[in-house]
Amino acid sequence: MSKSVKGKRVAILATDGFEESELSSPREALDVAGVEVDIVSLKSGKITAWAKTNWGKEYPVDKVLDEVTSDEYDMLVLPGGLFNPDTLRANDSALAFTRSFFKQHKPVAAICHAPWVLISAGVVNGRDLTSYPTVKDDVINAGGNWHDQSVVVDSGLVTSRSPEDLEDFNRKVIEELAEGKHQRQVA
Amino acid sequence: MSKSVKGKRVAILATDGFEESELSSPREALDVAGVEVDIVSLKSGKITAWAKTNWGKEYPVDKVLDEVTSDEYDMLVLPGGLFNPDTLRANDSALAFTRSFFKQHKPVAAICHAPWVLISAGVVNGRDLTSYPTVKDDVINAGGNWHDQSVVVDSGLVTSRSPEDLEDFNRKVIEELAEGKHQRQVA
Repeated sequence: MSKSVKGKRVAILATDGFEESELSSPREALDVAGVEVDIVSLKSGKITAWAKTNWGKEYPVDKVLDEVTSDEYDMLVLPGGLFNPDTLRANDSALAFTRSFFKQHKPVAAICHAPWVLISAGVVNGRDLTSYPTVKDDVINAGGNWHDQSVVVDSGLVTSRSPEDLEDFNRKVIEELAEGKHQRQVA
Repeated sequence: MSKSVKGKRVAILATDGFEESELSSPREALDVAGVEVDIVSLKSGKITAWAKTNWGKEYPVDKVLDEVTSDEYDMLVLPGGLFNPDTLRANDSALAFTRSFFKQHKPVAAICHAPWVLISAGVVNGRDLTSYPTVKDDVINAGGNWHDQSVVVDSGLVTSRSPEDLEDFNRKVIEELAEGKHQRQVA
């Protein structure tokens, strides 16, 4: 599996308040598999993690959102946390960037509260997905089919509920990245 | 105005991570008007505020949710913050308590991210309201009519966008409390 993803490029889109393990764990899994990973954010410098109950470590931003496009990446990963997706879903560039992966049929993964970004990007209707349980009603109201599973995969869209699901989440992230484009992944 | 609300009783439902000013400011306005206010929460003891960018002061809980009913109160006030409504919307007792104010046609006020609680209580469809801008899509997907105004009043339902709107919010909280029951306030 590692062989088929080696050299591929993944964008992790995040801002302050991302749940630390939901960025660090997928990034490590991708690193191990030989994938090039960029932390993409709204501004240059560093973004501050949320570590379960309080602010966590700072992470350097690799690329600023306005300097990149989805053309440069094979997949998008959206970590959760509360502040992080709450900020991103209100940012037009973040929503356009997210939507463009769907338009290009590229895989997208979102965990925990990150499906809020998918909701505001308008890409949830008719799709199978999961999320942190508190986001369930918002997913259903957006037209999504919500499932209480550790990971849900729907034609390149990978979603999980919480940090406890990271092992399953990371495995499917790598699988979908290996598979490449999915024609049912649309915006 | 103060005269007509004097002696009335208001429940402020909140848990850890409520935005501090969105509890303290309405409570002060109600206190000044002679209203009896209880901070109602999921557990006894204290709840910790969120003060703009970090954890804030602790506030003593007056009543535990499972010991009270909406029969004892004339109005419900829901402060925002991120963690607070994210926790409350996943709690069946909190949703039942909220819904019972609507069933009894009693005024309910929610500010910032608190409309998430209204969404999960299933009382937003067809109503006019506002919220923190990031919650707009969730409100609309739940069937609400979202307005970009400092305060929206719809038959006993009072909503505002953020702490900057507190002056308008508090004034309408007192007005709707004075008016009492609204027949279009339903669940």
